[in-house]
Amino acid sequence: MAATIRDVAKHAGVSFKTVSRVLNGEATVRPATRQRVLDAMGTLDYTPHHTARQMRTRRSNTIGFISDEIATSPFAVDIVKGAQLEAWQHGMLLLVVNTERDGQHEADAIATLLERRVEGIVYAAMFHRSVEPNDRLRQVPAVLIDCFEPNGRYHAVVPDEEQGGHLATRTLIDHGHRRIGFVNLDPVASAAASAGRLSGYRRALAEAGLPFDPELVRHATTAPDQGYTLTAALLDLEDRPTALFCGNDRMAAGAYCAIYERGLRIPTDVAVIGYDDQEEIAAYLMPALTTIALPHQAMGRWGVQRLLELVAADDEPPTVAAPLRLTCPLVRRDSV
Amino acid sequence: MAATIRDVAKHAGVSFKTVSRVLNGEATVRPATRQRVLDAMGTLDYTPHHTARQMRTRRSNTIGFISDEIATSPFAVDIVKGAQLEAWQHGMLLLVVNTERDGQHEADAIATLLERRVEGIVYAAMFHRSVEPNDRLRQVPAVLIDCFEPNGRYHAVVPDEEQGGHLATRTLIDHGHRRIGFVNLDPVASAAASAGRLSGYRRALAEAGLPFDPELVRHATTAPDQGYTLTAALLDLEDRPTALFCGNDRMAAGAYCAIYERGLRIPTDVAVIGYDDQEEIAAYLMPALTTIALPHQAMGRWGVQRLLELVAADDEPPTVAAPLRLTCPLVRRDSV
Repeated sequence: MAATIRDVAKHAGVSFKTVSRVLNGEATVRPATRQRVLDAMGTLDYTPHHTARQMRTRRSNTIGFISDEIATSPFAVDIVKGAQLEAWQHGMLLLVVNTERDGQHEADAIATLLERRVEGIVYAAMFHRSVEPNDRLRQVPAVLIDCFEPNGRYHAVVPDEEQGGHLATRTLIDHGHRRIGFVNLDPVASAAASAGRLSGYRRALAEAGLPFDPELVRHATTAPDQGYTLTAALLDLEDRPTALFCGNDRMAAGAYCAIYERGLRIPTDVAVIGYDDQEEIAAYLMPALTTIALPHQAMGRWGVQRLLELVAADDEPPTVAAPLRLTCPLVRRDSV
Repeated sequence: MAATIRDVAKHAGVSFKTVSRVLNGEATVRPATRQRVLDAMGTLDYTPHHTARQMRTRRSNTIGFISDEIATSPFAVDIVKGAQLEAWQHGMLLLVVNTERDGQHEADAIATLLERRVEGIVYAAMFHRSVEPNDRLRQVPAVLIDCFEPNGRYHAVVPDEEQGGHLATRTLIDHGHRRIGFVNLDPVASAAASAGRLSGYRRALAEAGLPFDPELVRHATTAPDQGYTLTAALLDLEDRPTALFCGNDRMAAGAYCAIYERGLRIPTDVAVIGYDDQEEIAAYLMPALTTIALPHQAMGRWGVQRLLELVAADDEPPTVAAPLRLTCPLVRRDSV
C-alpha cells in the first residue's frame, strides 16, 4: 500500500502540517526538519503527487509549461512548439508561464498552475543546464526539458552534447582537416554543453589518431565579440587551423568576419562548423553555415509525451532514470 | 438597448440558428446569406461578444493567445513575452495556441479557447501583415498584434514602418552619406513593411535634398542569399553606395560577407544599418550591427492592455480606430 502524508509525518516525527509545508515549498520550515521529511519520503517511497492527483476532482486537460527565460534565447522557442504540438495531439492545452529565472516568480508560477489544476508541468530551460526547481513542482507529475536536477528527482531530457561535439569534429576530419580550432562555449555559464562537446571533440581526434593541441581550443566568455576575437587569435597562430568548430552559430557569424577580414575564403581556406542550427543566422551567412542542430522540438515533444505517461500511470516508478540524451544531428550547408 | 442575436435574425430574415452558424464561422452558410447576416449586425450595431460574455457564468482569468507561426520567426517571441508580462500583472494567464497559418487549425484553436471560457483573445502574427481571422474570433473581445484586418473589424497594433525606414535613412544621412543603398524586403511577402520603409527612405532623402536613384533600391525575395547577392550587386556598381540600409538583420549578415569579400571595411568604407534588432545576430557581427528595433514586446503589452480594457468595458465602441502604430527605435552599435 502506498505511503500517505501521515505515514511520512509519523516517520519523520513531525506534524502533518509540517510535511504539507515542505511539500508546498514554504520557507518557514527549518532546513534540518525539511531534510528529515524528505528522508522519510525517500524511505517510504512516498510520491507526493499521488495524493495531489487524488485531490483533483476532475481532469483539466491542461498542462503547465514553465520556462526560465524565453526572451534571451528565442531560438529555443522550438521547445514550446514541440510541447504544443504533442499536447494538442492529446487534446491538452499548455498554460505557458515565464519565470525570468527569478525564484519568487517561479514559486508563484507553480502555485498559479496548481490552482488551475494542471495535470502536470513541464519545466524547460532555454539552454542545457543544471536546475533546482522549487519543491512545489513535486506536487504534480513533472518533467524537465533541456535541463536536469543534479539529484535526479525528475525525469529529464537533454541534448547529447558529447555526441554533437564528436559529430562536428568528425565531419571536419572526414573533409581532410588535421588542425581543427575549437571556439568552445563558456565553461562556467554553459558547463554542460562546453564539457560534453570538448569531450566529443577529443574523442573524435583520438579515433582519427590526431594529437590534441590545447592551443587550438579557446574558451569563450558570454560576451558577443568572442566568436570574432577568438577566431582572430586562432588564425594569427603560426600554424593556423584549416577548420573551425564554433560553440554556436552566433559565434560563427563573428568568426566569418575574422576570416573574411584576413582575405581568407570559406570553406577553401578555412572550413567552419557551428552549433544550434539557428536558421536565421546559419542560412543567411555566405556561404551558408553547416552546423549541428539542437533537438529542441524533439525535446519538447518527448517532455510532454513522458509527462502524459506519468499522469496516466497510477504508480510512478520510485526511481528516476538518468536524463534521456537526444541526438544532435548534422545540418549540411556550404561552409565545410 | 443592445441588439440581440434574435434582432439580427429578424432583420436579416433568417433563423436564429443561421446567425449562430455565421458567428461560429461554419462553412455551411451560403455567402449571400452570410453577407446579409453581417450587414444586419452592422446596421443594428450588434456586438457578438456581448452575448457571449453574458453567457459566461464566471470569470476565468484567462486570455487566449493565438499566433500564426512562432517557429519560423522566433525573434518575434518577444510579443509573447510582452503579452505574458502584461497579463501576469493583471492576474491573468495566457493560453497559448499556435495555428501554423492553417485555417482549420485556427478555427479549432479559437473554438478550444472559447470552450475554456477565455475572457478575450489576442491574435498575433509573427510579421507585420494583413490577416482575415476566422469569424469566431468575434465572439469574444479580440485584439490583433503585428497584423491588421483590412476592413478594420478589430483593434490592432503594428510597427510604424514608415517612421523606421525614415529613421534608418536619416541616421545614415546624418553620418554624411549621400549614396545610400537599400536592400528592401520582398514587396509581396512583406508588403506592409516593404512599402512603409521605402516611403520612409524616400521622405528622408527628400528632406535632405538628395535625389532618389532607383538603381540603389533592390527588392529581395525571401531566399536567404539575398542580403549577400543584392549587396554584391550594389557594391559592383560604378558609383557604389557608401552606406547600406538592409531590410532585416539576417540580410545584413549576408551583406557583411559581400562587403568583407571585397576587402572593404565597415563602417569606414561602407556603413550598414539593419532592421529588427535581432540581438543574436546584430550583437555577434563584427562590428556589431546598428539597427532599427521592432517594438515586439511593446506590441505584446499594448495588445493585452487594450484587450483587458475591452473585456472590462460594458459597451465596446462600435467603431474601431485605425491600427495603432508603435515607434521603431534606433539601436546604436558600431556599423554606422
